[in-house]
Amino acid sequence: MSQALRPEAPAVDSSDAALRARARAVIPGGLWGHLNVAKLPEGYPQYFTSAEGCRLRDTDGREYIDFMCSWGPIVLGHRHPVVEAAARRQAEQGDCMNGPAPVLVELAELLVDTIPHADWALLAKNGTDATTACVTIARAATGRRKVLVARGSYHGAVPWCSPSLAGVTAEDRAHILTFDYNDIASLEAAAEAAKDDLAAVIITAVRHDYAAHQDLARPDFARHLRELCDATGAALILDDVRAGFRIDLGGSWEPLGVRPDLSAFSKAIANGYALAAVTGRDRFREAATQVYTTGSFWCGAVPMAAALATITELRRINGPARMKAMGERLRAGLDALSRQYRLPVRQTGPAQMPLMIFDNDPDWAKGDAFCVAALRHGAYFHPRHNMFLSCAHAEADIDRALEAAEAGFRAVARG
Amino acid sequence: MSQALRPEAPAVDSSDAALRARARAVIPGGLWGHLNVAKLPEGYPQYFTSAEGCRLRDTDGREYIDFMCSWGPIVLGHRHPVVEAAARRQAEQGDCMNGPAPVLVELAELLVDTIPHADWALLAKNGTDATTACVTIARAATGRRKVLVARGSYHGAVPWCSPSLAGVTAEDRAHILTFDYNDIASLEAAAEAAKDDLAAVIITAVRHDYAAHQDLARPDFARHLRELCDATGAALILDDVRAGFRIDLGGSWEPLGVRPDLSAFSKAIANGYALAAVTGRDRFREAATQVYTTGSFWCGAVPMAAALATITELRRINGPARMKAMGERLRAGLDALSRQYRLPVRQTGPAQMPLMIFDNDPDWAKGDAFCVAALRHGAYFHPRHNMFLSCAHAEADIDRALEAAEAGFRAVARG
Repeated sequence: MSQALRPEAPAVDSSDAALRARARAVIPGGLWGHLNVAKLPEGYPQYFTSAEGCRLRDTDGREYIDFMCSWGPIVLGHRHPVVEAAARRQAEQGDCMNGPAPVLVELAELLVDTIPHADWALLAKNGTDATTACVTIARAATGRRKVLVARGSYHGAVPWCSPSLAGVTAEDRAHILTFDYNDIASLEAAAEAAKDDLAAVIITAVRHDYAAHQDLARPDFARHLRELCDATGAALILDDVRAGFRIDLGGSWEPLGVRPDLSAFSKAIANGYALAAVTGRDRFREAATQVYTTGSFWCGAVPMAAALATITELRRINGPARMKAMGERLRAGLDALSRQYRLPVRQTGPAQMPLMIFDNDPDWAKGDAFCVAALRHGAYFHPRHNMFLSCAHAEADIDRALEAAEAGFRAVARG
Repeated sequence: MSQALRPEAPAVDSSDAALRARARAVIPGGLWGHLNVAKLPEGYPQYFTSAEGCRLRDTDGREYIDFMCSWGPIVLGHRHPVVEAAARRQAEQGDCMNGPAPVLVELAELLVDTIPHADWALLAKNGTDATTACVTIARAATGRRKVLVARGSYHGAVPWCSPSLAGVTAEDRAHILTFDYNDIASLEAAAEAAKDDLAAVIITAVRHDYAAHQDLARPDFARHLRELCDATGAALILDDVRAGFRIDLGGSWEPLGVRPDLSAFSKAIANGYALAAVTGRDRFREAATQVYTTGSFWCGAVPMAAALATITELRRINGPARMKAMGERLRAGLDALSRQYRLPVRQTGPAQMPLMIFDNDPDWAKGDAFCVAALRHGAYFHPRHNMFLSCAHAEADIDRALEAAEAGFRAVARG
């Protein structure tokens, strides 16, 4: 340890470029994970100084209307006053203590009250914590090992499910079998291969794989999945980490009338505070007590207070309907621009989680040019990952973003 | 989803007993993980309303001098004003955005500056995130699979390392080999069994297994471990999640003169805010970029601001020395009481992480009686898990806690 104390003030040059240069020295690859903009075209800022509502400000002072919402967590808008007030009230009492605060009980009761399949809830910090706990609980409850996963679906960033195979051993995935999303025949084939060792099927609420059009779950496929699990005793695990609290507050497959046995939630659950949840049916309650799942901060009260406020507010204002309406306004505007500029696009996914991909754009040149131009005009879109609406997006914000999008279409039209 | 909104106010009866009864209905086993007091004797509160400095208050209004510090995270004291101010300043700007805030770079630079072996750092949320990332990075870097783990050591709560085998498959641990802490012969035997497939040895900074006396790492053992890794090319991973920032700010094996290749930190890094870190040598930098490790909240700026303030303050006041002095004062006082009451005990571990176990107490009856009586007199001790000092413990707090401890010894003496 060097004994010299560092000055408290940050370095003078805090531009994005200067921060990236400093980061490259002390962080592998400049940044870990999904927020690293290395794979995005030049023009995306890496660092941000502030955020409010549906607006973000980067370190060079540029402001953007935000359509990533921190890749999902921000569902009411950045720094939402109701959530911030609830979090601050709890922080003024205590956060990480030797046990939970009473807010834990209120939150667990609210989750059970809000989510029809949920007889119980347990909390964690990461979406990966929740999906991993679901799989482990399913194995403990069934005494079986095989887990069916849709090819290409993202369920987290640990060896059993990571999109990278670096450091992953064959054994980490020894009991993972794959099927194709929305394809009953491939699901049946995978279930058959699992024989009497089928512990669970885990599936994202929407097919929202990276760099591909989204697919909503087909109702007949979802029902078939439910029937398969009922017939075999396997757990139907809904990975609602990304879609949860945007499509339906009761769980994203409620509109389909298909209820899972276990669900994994995170991202939007607390409007940006670090929290995840597993919810489950009574049949899995005993297994959930046997599985040891915990973390140093999992009883932290402030994120729970934020979640209580977030979900209560989402119910009060019917957040999913509001986000859907604004998402549809954005989608209609983009479609009109696409026609106007004769640049065909395909828009997929729930309106609350939009994705627009240009036709005939194999190397993403159009999508990248669109996004870079839109960024310059003040809208933060993503060319190949689904985007997110929040309840802070109002009509005027969408209309303003469509002006930026028009600059994007113009840039693509120019070639 | 029920459309009825829940009232915002909590239920009228928020006593510990009432909260536990409500929790049993909606949380498996009443609470997940290590903070569940079900395995502790009656008298331990499960819920807390507030905390300040080294004091905690439960929901029935009782106050305790806290010797668990939330099982490690609280290192400066609950709600430390410097940390809270830094966190609030950042929260007023932005927390969970589309990329990190500049504070990430400052924190990564501070970690590299503070921890001699660290050429780089990456951040996460849980200790388990950090230990799992270390193992995965070691495998990616070496192209090998076997990992040596000390029998009984805790490295996290996921299948490869969880203390419970519920839901764990044989394959989850196919490449884990065990040795005995501080035992060179068993380490050598395990390394030999790994042959040329040895990716890493992971070891806690102190042997702090549950319900057992602690053991400090023997210097010759630590040196041997370093030599083994140097000779084989395996990564020496120091799991400093529990001991980190209490023994030495440069890493808990700095006093031994043994530096790891990779370290996992969490708990005390941000005084209770959810954060973890992996630090590593340059040799592992490229592998750390290949392994995909991320989470929805891993770029959250508020916990980083809290960590920056925590580590800066720990350096300024030499936190480890202060905690050591107070831990030694506690230890001396407990030893004096033990002699006075003729009740032999054994105290083990670093003074900053004390543990006192009564001699001839196979069923923990003495330890439990001691702790329950001390609790009634206002000190929160643990009978069988190592405890934690914080920098908020002053001499008067230790002396006050020793009065509660005397009540504990009296209770044991009464039988």
